[in-house]
Amino acid sequence: MTKIKAAIVGYGNIGRYALEAVLAAEDFELVGVVRRNTQDIPAELSGYKLVDDIEKLGKVDVALLCSPTRAIGPLAAKVLSLGINTVDSFDVHSDIVALKHSLDDVARQHNSVAVVSAGWDPGSDSIMRTLMLAMAPKGVTYTNFGPGMSMGHSVAAKAINGVKDALSVTIPLGTGVHRRMVYVELDGGAKFDEVAQAIKADSYFSSDETHIRQVDSIDALKDVGHGVHMTHKGVSGATHNQLFEYSMRINNPALTSQFMVSAARATMKQAAGAYTVIEIPPVNFLQGDLDTLIAKLV
Amino acid sequence: MTKIKAAIVGYGNIGRYALEAVLAAEDFELVGVVRRNTQDIPAELSGYKLVDDIEKLGKVDVALLCSPTRAIGPLAAKVLSLGINTVDSFDVHSDIVALKHSLDDVARQHNSVAVVSAGWDPGSDSIMRTLMLAMAPKGVTYTNFGPGMSMGHSVAAKAINGVKDALSVTIPLGTGVHRRMVYVELDGGAKFDEVAQAIKADSYFSSDETHIRQVDSIDALKDVGHGVHMTHKGVSGATHNQLFEYSMRINNPALTSQFMVSAARATMKQAAGAYTVIEIPPVNFLQGDLDTLIAKLV
Repeated sequence: MTKIKAAIVGYGNIGRYALEAVLAAEDFELVGVVRRNTQDIPAELSGYKLVDDIEKLGKVDVALLCSPTRAIGPLAAKVLSLGINTVDSFDVHSDIVALKHSLDDVARQHNSVAVVSAGWDPGSDSIMRTLMLAMAPKGVTYTNFGPGMSMGHSVAAKAINGVKDALSVTIPLGTGVHRRMVYVELDGGAKFDEVAQAIKADSYFSSDETHIRQVDSIDALKDVGHGVHMTHKGVSGATHNQLFEYSMRINNPALTSQFMVSAARATMKQAAGAYTVIEIPPVNFLQGDLDTLIAKLV
Repeated sequence: MTKIKAAIVGYGNIGRYALEAVLAAEDFELVGVVRRNTQDIPAELSGYKLVDDIEKLGKVDVALLCSPTRAIGPLAAKVLSLGINTVDSFDVHSDIVALKHSLDDVARQHNSVAVVSAGWDPGSDSIMRTLMLAMAPKGVTYTNFGPGMSMGHSVAAKAINGVKDALSVTIPLGTGVHRRMVYVELDGGAKFDEVAQAIKADSYFSSDETHIRQVDSIDALKDVGHGVHMTHKGVSGATHNQLFEYSMRINNPALTSQFMVSAARATMKQAAGAYTVIEIPPVNFLQGDLDTLIAKLV
């Protein structure tokens, strides 16, 4: 079997889990890891190439872009222009269509394939929402997140004056309404009441029920578990009250990086261009012979 | 907007619901219904063409094959050879790969598209099983059916000597194990104990926990509601205990026919050939502009 040659670009939280997911996939071969700092080599990377530029890795089929969302656009364009497929977990929902179009042009020019926003939301949850509408086109879908840590909200709380460290946990209240439980470690002279008021006034928190708690150590609370509970109640044909539910309880970066690896596999079967996950035949996310997969799963 | 010209072939339980689903879909136009008996015209068909041969309908883009599973193979081959796309809800899991290959040859020759087994299991459930493996490739998936009426088991019980009418309800016991509750209306001289023993010995029931109950009227018990509860516990990368759950409570023929209509829409975007639902980009099941759907769902 010719293995899929993969590179991991960016070695933060997602990159570490992506390493595990690539190594666990029998049909993948890790060509190397790309990061700025190539001097401090973490123990788990000792057997692998560590470079500061993907062009130094030789032949790569697909790059897992594990850099922050804001860096994805230019990074993906650069990698695609080298004829290397890309997968990312870009997570700003409102910018996905624009990102896809810009990468689509580059990918077509350079005969490469991009799968954008291939984490879990956007990502696997997006496929669930699509499937629910295919089953009952009319009706309401609610995606409830949590309980689990929100990276974006934690960063926003940490940026408030007087906050040394912060953790924002998303609590699902149903029908897409969420409570934010914000834990803060304060700087020496900061006053809790003022900090709490500033957090509640921040646009990340002002429209949700938000509770602030002062703690001695944020580090002692950190847990990357997360969850989703999605419901759809709708109409199939002329028949109302069709009920659908989906839920998961997962390690957040582990699921994100696994789904990125599954999407990386799918890039090998798409025509040049950029795609969201709902534009890809689901079976292409999986390893194995098509007929065997159909016999097992359909 | 050019509408998709659809025909319904077969007008039993699924066909009736398919009529509702086609009429509810704004991007579809019902060209007509094909059935053997064109004399007795049900009230709801009075405004539509009713013919005994699909060739009498003029231009048809896609035919919803609502005939019994055993008839699907030759029927689909005939319709595909006319250059008309087909969708079916063929439900013998072990024969799906063979059906797909035989229809693939015909469809490629005649530039048409077949989507096979596009009900809910096989069908939408198949996509769920695929998605769960894409998220956590190792681990066990259980599909638990019910509570709801099983057509196949009801027919098998009805075929037993002394049974006037029968209804078999599937009860999920978890981990893919099911109980069968079989309700029977007996013929005049039949003895309940003998009938019950014969049902339990039948290959449809012999490996499941089966309870037989004698009732006065099967008709009084009929309810086409059904359910599924699917679980997947598995490994993403090297991270164990990733937990996924999917469930639905639905009107069975309404969901089957709605998903067939969604698949019929998808046939319009596939290259000539035959496909199972896991080989089709999920967004193609939906009506609407691609970018709008991506912005809403991804």
